[in-house]
Amino acid sequence: MAKGIRQKLYEIIYEADTPAGKWFDIILLWAIIASIVMVMLESVEWIDKDYGELLNIAEWVVTILFSLEYILRIITVKKPLRYVFSFYGIVDFLSTIPKYLGLFLTGSSHFLVAVRALRLIRVFRILKLVRYIGEANQLSKALIASKAKILVFITSVLILSVILGTVMYLIEGPENGFKNIPHSVYWTIVTLTTVGYGDIAPQTPLGQFIASIVMILGYGIIAVPTGIVTAEIAHLDKIDTNTQACPHCTAENHKDDSNFCYKCGGELL
Amino acid sequence: MAKGIRQKLYEIIYEADTPAGKWFDIILLWAIIASIVMVMLESVEWIDKDYGELLNIAEWVVTILFSLEYILRIITVKKPLRYVFSFYGIVDFLSTIPKYLGLFLTGSSHFLVAVRALRLIRVFRILKLVRYIGEANQLSKALIASKAKILVFITSVLILSVILGTVMYLIEGPENGFKNIPHSVYWTIVTLTTVGYGDIAPQTPLGQFIASIVMILGYGIIAVPTGIVTAEIAHLDKIDTNTQACPHCTAENHKDDSNFCYKCGGELL
Amino acid sequence: MAKGIRQKLYEIIYEADTPAGKWFDIILLWAIIASIVMVMLESVEWIDKDYGELLNIAEWVVTILFSLEYILRIITVKKPLRYVFSFYGIVDFLSTIPKYLGLFLTGSSHFLVAVRALRLIRVFRILKLVRYIGEANQLSKALIASKAKILVFITSVLILSVILGTVMYLIEGPENGFKNIPHSVYWTIVTLTTVGYGDIAPQTPLGQFIASIVMILGYGIIAVPTGIVTAEIAHLDKIDTNTQACPHCTAENHKDDSNFCYKCGGELL
Amino acid sequence: MAKGIRQKLYEIIYEADTPAGKWFDIILLWAIIASIVMVMLESVEWIDKDYGELLNIAEWVVTILFSLEYILRIITVKKPLRYVFSFYGIVDFLSTIPKYLGLFLTGSSHFLVAVRALRLIRVFRILKLVRYIGEANQLSKALIASKAKILVFITSVLILSVILGTVMYLIEGPENGFKNIPHSVYWTIVTLTTVGYGDIAPQTPLGQFIASIVMILGYGIIAVPTGIVTAEIAHLDKIDTNTQACPHCTAENHKDDSNFCYKCGGELL
Repeated sequence: MAKGIRQKLYEIIYEADTPAGKWFDIILLWAIIASIVMVMLESVEWIDKDYGELLNIAEWVVTILFSLEYILRIITVKKPLRYVFSFYGIVDFLSTIPKYLGLFLTGSSHFLVAVRALRLIRVFRILKLVRYIGEANQLSKALIASKAKILVFITSVLILSVILGTVMYLIEGPENGFKNIPHSVYWTIVTLTTVGYGDIAPQTPLGQFIASIVMILGYGIIAVPTGIVTAEIAHLDKIDTNTQACPHCTAENHKDDSNFCYKCGGELL
Repeated sequence: MAKGIRQKLYEIIYEADTPAGKWFDIILLWAIIASIVMVMLESVEWIDKDYGELLNIAEWVVTILFSLEYILRIITVKKPLRYVFSFYGIVDFLSTIPKYLGLFLTGSSHFLVAVRALRLIRVFRILKLVRYIGEANQLSKALIASKAKILVFITSVLILSVILGTVMYLIEGPENGFKNIPHSVYWTIVTLTTVGYGDIAPQTPLGQFIASIVMILGYGIIAVPTGIVTAEIAHLDKIDTNTQACPHCTAENHKDDSNFCYKCGGELL
Repeated sequence: MAKGIRQKLYEIIYEADTPAGKWFDIILLWAIIASIVMVMLESVEWIDKDYGELLNIAEWVVTILFSLEYILRIITVKKPLRYVFSFYGIVDFLSTIPKYLGLFLTGSSHFLVAVRALRLIRVFRILKLVRYIGEANQLSKALIASKAKILVFITSVLILSVILGTVMYLIEGPENGFKNIPHSVYWTIVTLTTVGYGDIAPQTPLGQFIASIVMILGYGIIAVPTGIVTAEIAHLDKIDTNTQACPHCTAENHKDDSNFCYKCGGELL
Repeated sequence: MAKGIRQKLYEIIYEADTPAGKWFDIILLWAIIASIVMVMLESVEWIDKDYGELLNIAEWVVTILFSLEYILRIITVKKPLRYVFSFYGIVDFLSTIPKYLGLFLTGSSHFLVAVRALRLIRVFRILKLVRYIGEANQLSKALIASKAKILVFITSVLILSVILGTVMYLIEGPENGFKNIPHSVYWTIVTLTTVGYGDIAPQTPLGQFIASIVMILGYGIIAVPTGIVTAEIAHLDKIDTNTQACPHCTAENHKDDSNFCYKCGGELL
């Protein structure tokens, strides 16, 4: 293949700043969505029975499209091996093979569903596309910035759940549906997060009293992650610190309207 | 009709800054609410049986009122056709016809309810009235400003739901109530949003473990839209202080209606 | 009664800045809580059967205490009639009479419970006490400041609930538990607010699809009141505007570090 | 024991700034987690039956580790009695004894579980470890700072729950599952906090109407703790910029680690 064509294909497949590259990304996005919808529909019994043939053909179309894309990606990239063993390379490969595997593996249909569901991992490529939008960048920046706080928060919630779950197990016991401590901890998380299925619910007055405390606690606790993320987003909105580094001392995070470095006093250019 | 009267009627019907115009809007508001309440009451079996006659008369009163209003709107407006085919023109028309349609269409009562329910679209006219209140403006401004962020957020939630829904389908399977993947995705959304009906709930220990993770995830995720909207509202509130600096002492953050610097007392230009 | 004693009693009963006045308030608080706990316990069948006698005596003790307090309030206040017909006067009266009424009214025990429950209104007096704490003041200030925004928000939620409730009624219908439109609207509110009892849950795939949208909507909507209140509380924390009025032009809301009026430029003292 | 060794052991056990001290803390952390997981697993019937022997041995290993640690703590600390009767001293003791107690107390297995569960209190030592992370510090600072506001909030929620619970009891009554007032209050808390088990749900139209109001109320109320905590966290974040003004140009809002003014480059004193 001529070097010029390869270079052009590379730009179309791997980049998104040419019109052709944009079209490629959009078509790929819809193909991925279609392939996921198909996996979902196939799991619905009556659809599988009535339109199984149609779905099978559509699956083959998508699989061939994905195969072509995978081959083109290997051909056009400069270091093919590096791509093949990169995260997205593996994801792309796994999204392509299920249908081919289905040819050889017959029988256990449950296993085949699991294999086909692998294609879902492909969704992350959409996420990569979404990443182009600046807003997503800002959101994930806010989440990453508050990562440590969120970790501390989740740890505290888990410890609290274990303590409260054990207390509830001792109060209610297996006869009221709190079968064992892990099961009780599950109930506590269901309650703390205000999900509240109702498949397990305290029956004794004392259990209901403790449950009320758990709920009010959960009500208050929900404030914490919200507070963390909100403060972070508000912070990102406010600073106006730019990413420019001081040419004299390399200090960063200057305020947007700074004329001089806050660290060494040198002029910012 | 004399031009003076038409002009006056136009002011009453389309504007709200004269006393008569305000009265017209308030009466219309109540008529719309009454018509909606009637649709709701009619669907209640015992009310329909006992007070059906009364409701029928009331419906006709409201329908005639709406018809009169619709005709007046067409007469008084300068470009009638433009009104008729505008969004609110179509909504007004659809709110008026159901009762007349009911005269000709007999039989399928379910279809008639659907036709009558069209009147609900009228509620948007109330929303238009609400829009007069400055606060609503500010709220919708905050929502529009964070539209892009919210879209990214909802997309991420949907992708997450599809992945988690498929995982739960593979773990729990149809025998535990997770009938198919779309059904599992529905369960994931019910859980992620902390609604938790309990019509489907994980039965296996592994399923309950994954469900716990989904819940804590949902707990954290709820922080994101809150953070987005809060930061936006806070931002709108803040704008009260402008960024103008005092020409005498360079102090900043003056209130919008300041004539003099709060720091040195110099006049602001 | 000597004027001096009356004055002293007035200070004890109506004010809280003397040690005796504080003690009076604290004892009253506990008496109110005790009286409420008694109403609650009496409704529990087995407690009423086993400890009914004891509860009866305790009720009489509290009732006599309340009667004494009520009489003292009338005697010591300067304009007794004005107190009797004030909001708190009526509340105090209604909290006292249930037990006396119980002497004459026998039979319908359900009615008697309702009469006794009147005493709950007394709780508002506790709320009045709570008001002494500065923090409560600040919270209610934040809520009052965002009253208009919250009203707009609740109206929007209600309109949305009516529309979505009607849609769900048409989709699911009485055969799937959505008995009538008001019942459907009730379901929509249960879902939008993420309560999710599960007594009514969509059965059809289309219904579940719409329900998913309602949930994600509710998820996003919860951000709005949070954003409103948060911004308000943050605002109260930040301003630092004091309540001092300018001695020259009576303008208010000066920033805490202001030396000169931002309106007329006059010096603040 | 030589003073040098004791001093060294003290540093390892009580402090975390030497490599050995850090290792000690990490091993202890995992031992505590393991001991908790064991208590949880033992409560699961089939695990207890199949792996009971193994769990018993593992329990003894952990118990002996804890005993050793407890003895070392007493030996190395300067004032042993003060440690023994301190909060963490008692917690450490209670985490150690359950297995020994189990040797003498046989029979009531439920009581034995309760005794073993005492070990959960040990988790607080993990919490102490977590405290080393600065982020946890900041979070708890935010929570402590808003303690008063949260207390006022919880009190208001409780009063509201009692009032609404009584109202619902009078409307729905025992025949619809609202057995007594405490039970109704429990339902109100379940609803207000948007948990919504569905084990009790209003059956009458009036009850469902009141319930809808409770839910919308709960929806709004959740905004309050969030607002409180968010404002507090945002406040803590902001403190990074100090209120010092530049002595040369009066510019404010310098970052805490600034040595030079970002505006005019003059040195900050």
